[in-house]
Amino acid sequence: MRILLINPNTTESVTTLVKRHAETIAGDTATFVPVTGRFGARYISTRASAAIAGHAALDAYAMHRDRCDAVYLACFGDPGLLALREIADVPVVGMAEASCIEASRRGRFAIVTGGALWGPMLREFVGSIGLADKLAKVRTIAPTGGDIARNPDAALAALASACTACASEDGADVVILGGAALAGLASRIQSDVPVPVLCSVETGTRAVIAAAANGLNNTSPPPTLESVGLGAELAKLLQQK
Amino acid sequence: MRILLINPNTTESVTTLVKRHAETIAGDTATFVPVTGRFGARYISTRASAAIAGHAALDAYAMHRDRCDAVYLACFGDPGLLALREIADVPVVGMAEASCIEASRRGRFAIVTGGALWGPMLREFVGSIGLADKLAKVRTIAPTGGDIARNPDAALAALASACTACASEDGADVVILGGAALAGLASRIQSDVPVPVLCSVETGTRAVIAAAANGLNNTSPPPTLESVGLGAELAKLLQQK
Amino acid sequence: MRILLINPNTTESVTTLVKRHAETIAGDTATFVPVTGRFGARYISTRASAAIAGHAALDAYAMHRDRCDAVYLACFGDPGLLALREIADVPVVGMAEASCIEASRRGRFAIVTGGALWGPMLREFVGSIGLADKLAKVRTIAPTGGDIARNPDAALAALASACTACASEDGADVVILGGAALAGLASRIQSDVPVPVLCSVETGTRAVIAAAANGLNNTSPPPTLESVGLGAELAKLLQQK
Amino acid sequence: MRILLINPNTTESVTTLVKRHAETIAGDTATFVPVTGRFGARYISTRASAAIAGHAALDAYAMHRDRCDAVYLACFGDPGLLALREIADVPVVGMAEASCIEASRRGRFAIVTGGALWGPMLREFVGSIGLADKLAKVRTIAPTGGDIARNPDAALAALASACTACASEDGADVVILGGAALAGLASRIQSDVPVPVLCSVETGTRAVIAAAANGLNNTSPPPTLESVGLGAELAKLLQQK
Amino acid sequence: MRILLINPNTTESVTTLVKRHAETIAGDTATFVPVTGRFGARYISTRASAAIAGHAALDAYAMHRDRCDAVYLACFGDPGLLALREIADVPVVGMAEASCIEASRRGRFAIVTGGALWGPMLREFVGSIGLADKLAKVRTIAPTGGDIARNPDAALAALASACTACASEDGADVVILGGAALAGLASRIQSDVPVPVLCSVETGTRAVIAAAANGLNNTSPPPTLESVGLGAELAKLLQQK
Amino acid sequence: MRILLINPNTTESVTTLVKRHAETIAGDTATFVPVTGRFGARYISTRASAAIAGHAALDAYAMHRDRCDAVYLACFGDPGLLALREIADVPVVGMAEASCIEASRRGRFAIVTGGALWGPMLREFVGSIGLADKLAKVRTIAPTGGDIARNPDAALAALASACTACASEDGADVVILGGAALAGLASRIQSDVPVPVLCSVETGTRAVIAAAANGLNNTSPPPTLESVGLGAELAKLLQQK
Repeated sequence: MRILLINPNTTESVTTLVKRHAETIAGDTATFVPVTGRFGARYISTRASAAIAGHAALDAYAMHRDRCDAVYLACFGDPGLLALREIADVPVVGMAEASCIEASRRGRFAIVTGGALWGPMLREFVGSIGLADKLAKVRTIAPTGGDIARNPDAALAALASACTACASEDGADVVILGGAALAGLASRIQSDVPVPVLCSVETGTRAVIAAAANGLNNTSPPPTLESVGLGAELAKLLQQK
Repeated sequence: MRILLINPNTTESVTTLVKRHAETIAGDTATFVPVTGRFGARYISTRASAAIAGHAALDAYAMHRDRCDAVYLACFGDPGLLALREIADVPVVGMAEASCIEASRRGRFAIVTGGALWGPMLREFVGSIGLADKLAKVRTIAPTGGDIARNPDAALAALASACTACASEDGADVVILGGAALAGLASRIQSDVPVPVLCSVETGTRAVIAAAANGLNNTSPPPTLESVGLGAELAKLLQQK
Repeated sequence: MRILLINPNTTESVTTLVKRHAETIAGDTATFVPVTGRFGARYISTRASAAIAGHAALDAYAMHRDRCDAVYLACFGDPGLLALREIADVPVVGMAEASCIEASRRGRFAIVTGGALWGPMLREFVGSIGLADKLAKVRTIAPTGGDIARNPDAALAALASACTACASEDGADVVILGGAALAGLASRIQSDVPVPVLCSVETGTRAVIAAAANGLNNTSPPPTLESVGLGAELAKLLQQK
Repeated sequence: MRILLINPNTTESVTTLVKRHAETIAGDTATFVPVTGRFGARYISTRASAAIAGHAALDAYAMHRDRCDAVYLACFGDPGLLALREIADVPVVGMAEASCIEASRRGRFAIVTGGALWGPMLREFVGSIGLADKLAKVRTIAPTGGDIARNPDAALAALASACTACASEDGADVVILGGAALAGLASRIQSDVPVPVLCSVETGTRAVIAAAANGLNNTSPPPTLESVGLGAELAKLLQQK
Repeated sequence: MRILLINPNTTESVTTLVKRHAETIAGDTATFVPVTGRFGARYISTRASAAIAGHAALDAYAMHRDRCDAVYLACFGDPGLLALREIADVPVVGMAEASCIEASRRGRFAIVTGGALWGPMLREFVGSIGLADKLAKVRTIAPTGGDIARNPDAALAALASACTACASEDGADVVILGGAALAGLASRIQSDVPVPVLCSVETGTRAVIAAAANGLNNTSPPPTLESVGLGAELAKLLQQK
Repeated sequence: MRILLINPNTTESVTTLVKRHAETIAGDTATFVPVTGRFGARYISTRASAAIAGHAALDAYAMHRDRCDAVYLACFGDPGLLALREIADVPVVGMAEASCIEASRRGRFAIVTGGALWGPMLREFVGSIGLADKLAKVRTIAPTGGDIARNPDAALAALASACTACASEDGADVVILGGAALAGLASRIQSDVPVPVLCSVETGTRAVIAAAANGLNNTSPPPTLESVGLGAELAKLLQQK
């Protein structure tokens, strides 16, 4: 199976980091085709950059969708998720949506990530997928995803401490360590946290592999749309549907 | 007062239509600076086109923000509203948000608009602004905003009938006729509907004039963001904040 | 424009305080006609006094409604708001409703006021206007509005500290300093609070000026009601509708 | 046991009607002391009349509270319920609250009553007591409670039909026939309705008898309140607490 | 009146403890017929034991239902409550449901009990009866109900401290001390807690006595069910309905 | 991979039906070990039978759990789901939970099943997994699952009609055809329904295969529980944890 891995940030090293983790989990069951956003913020950490990333994800899909069995939207916060699902003819899995669903099966969940502005954005995201009642808390630490990607070791103690507070103060039964740039850190702090810590990159990877295997397709294509000023492939895709 | 009127659709005639209605209401209290999206769908009617429009609205703001006292995001559904508010240093008013707030003051409200795909998008939007408990129903008619703009007379009966159903079947105390392309139609169908019908263009116009007069500014600018591939003005704006 | 300013407390000095602040904001755009409740508690600080104040607000409106373009219900908690709106033929703006709506546009909001019993009453009020999902917290300090009116300086430190706790502990993006008796204190503590602090008196004033300008009227008058034992003007108003 | 039966309407015949039904249920376990509102609408059917009734209920309690073991607020919609509970030192039971609680034990419930304006008021009431999730629907018929009191036979068919619609269209497991003026009608229409129909007067009576027997008292009296212009007994009660 | 007191735990000493408290409250108004679960955990403290207890409660009812006027399901968490109500032809009162309803009349309530795993189970229970909006917090202390039954004195300080935290930190207006094994402890800690503490055993007892007196019956029996492997009485009861 | 397929009904032919559908989907990726409840209703169609089934599912797991990589709780309504998850050391997937999650990814969903009493039970179930906001409607047809299993052809028209009503009247974007006994019917009615129809048996099968592959285990075993009167294997399992 071929899975299109879209990183709607514009930093290729993060794409590579996610791809490495995804391939380790997939083994020989799936191949990941990595693509980095053509435009937008280096690291998404504000509402404006997330809004732009929604467009960038659509653009990336339109350019690289050939022969893929599923799409992995690999940015925690899932910019453009429902729009991608609307135009794609294969399953689309968002890293945050998949992580929240998996976590909600285990009880009330919390999210820990980097960058204070993600707090309200993620609370709203969880509400939008209908799981607000299961969300115990979103906690953020000061360094952004970009900062953590550059120096993950420096963030471990703060991440572990935030995860522990989610369990002891907020009553979370499970914590999601959210963010492409945080790939693999969950297992490094698990022993310091009294409840399970889910790695969003790994949880999303497992979900997209399952979705690609299930192959459930979109059944009602949206109407044809005329547009101006978009990338050629995206314009063509909107037009032809 | 100067108000930047952003139509994130890419159809200039709709921008002109909204401007005309806004100026009639404003009289000499405010001037509207109209700007049409540089890229995206001619008429926003799907999730993909709405996602792109969020980016287009930011781009339009960055290019035309000089000397404006407020921003009027004049597309019902308010693509990019919170992102715009994040980067703007003047008040930003969305047509749908302003209409829903005004309607919620009068009791439970309903929304009628054109284009079936707007149904779930608008229900989610109302939830995102915290007013889900006040929403009686969203009803859509088959012709899209684009269709209605081209031939408003053909849509009047269906719009009036949908508004009436909101009152008699869904218990709405007030109905919003939503959509830039539906500017001015509320007064034409009011006599056929048993509850008040609000024109979203006019309600939004009144709200943005009030906001411009109040001049409440954003107080916590977002962090500087490095980006690639964006319009020069938007990139500069994200960078300098 | 003439705006009827109803203080449903029975303390005239508070009416005068609010009037002074309202006129400063209005400049020459509006005149405020002040009226103090004819009966009820000196300072509303309990459910019983709030219930009585709902009646007093209706009575005040019936007596002083002539030639007004809007009504400003100037008690944070808005006793009688929906009932006033039902019998008035001009727009009615409540201080708390207007403040919560304005605050909700900026994200999750908190309320700080004086008098512990206002805590549950205000939480319920926010729920009743449909904004419970946007409310981060209501915090009260021990002195009541009456105490603060008599000695505002003594309350500044406690108010600032409560506002700061709303931001740092409760995740509020903005705090409303609620209460007629707290008019003008927001700007005095703003520099000690890390998020914007809204003055409810000023926010309500701006909203009622905008509403008076918009002139949107009530369209469905309630049925005629026969009554006994009410003030003559109120009885007549209920009878004639 | 002595139970103070407060009818905050100002129509004595309704007080008498409720008293008669209450005594039939109570047998010799309790005596009911009837009191009719001193001021306010003949029949509460609007928000304004309900707001005034909240004051009237407090006034009635203050005048007649001597030697009572419980208070029965016998108007469906419970004007002033929480305020009464605040100032009373015996249990206070509202007819609507008691009926909704009893109904919620049997599944999702609906309410049928007379007077269209009660629809939104009762939906909000149910929300305020925390039971919105259990409410299937509020249906109103055109004649108000006052009309039905004058000619109950004329309303039976419409009430039965509305109750049946609650079951068959709205999925209600049980329906409350709400309203002091509708006392005793539930049993007359039960055979025409496919789910149980609760009489609000009888359900409230049973609840207040149980509450009087349990004798759970209010433990935290509100602070002393100075007032002007109130009935002497109410002023004294507010003052002395 | 005869009330069937079902303890779905399998520890007879707890049944006896509850019976003693119930009889003290009932005086000569009601007799309690105690029955202890035939199978299941000694003390219910996990989801698995609660699921089994739902079956055990049905089995106990089927075996001992003769000539009872009401059923008291005397385990806080009410395993099998709605199923019992479905098959019983007399009123069924659950200890937790009755306590939460009584508490919700006094404002926002909290629950304190023993055994950490009850936390999420009770939050879900409160949601299932529609009272989530009224729940301030569930706090658990480490010793389980079984531990507390064996040595109540050792738990008093921790229980009082948890109840106090519910008031001071979580804003609860009233706290329920929940659990059959905690019968009578509320009055022992009341003086150390700043808000009322309800004993779940006593509150439930009062509610079941009232329900037995009211005698409201189930009106729509479920369909006949064929089964295998159940206790003879339960099988017969399911079959004959 | 070996997957334990638990049918908590006591009708073996339904177990066989589900197994056949599961194996068709699984191909050679997984083997299903079927087990039918030892006790309880032939077909679960009431709250009492569902409560008993929760116990039966635990009993079945305890007896047959050896060497399984996951558990498939194959009864729509998932009796005992969270209790099973608590005691199992492999992933547990419920047919209804998996179907609702998959459906919620596609928008607002509806459920159609057989047996009127499932209506409220399923609404509550969806609420308990936190997805109430995504549920458009539950519609039931008169024949129960047992009836449909005996004669599926007779139910097709009613099922298709109910699914269509979910789309056209209730605004569902996708419909789940729920129930073990309805395995395979979704594809037979799809062409008559304007939105996608998910087969709960197949959707659950795909989810359990994915979960078995992911192998995420329970990390916090519940405390040891002493019990009486249970099946030997279940007693031992509760004891040893």
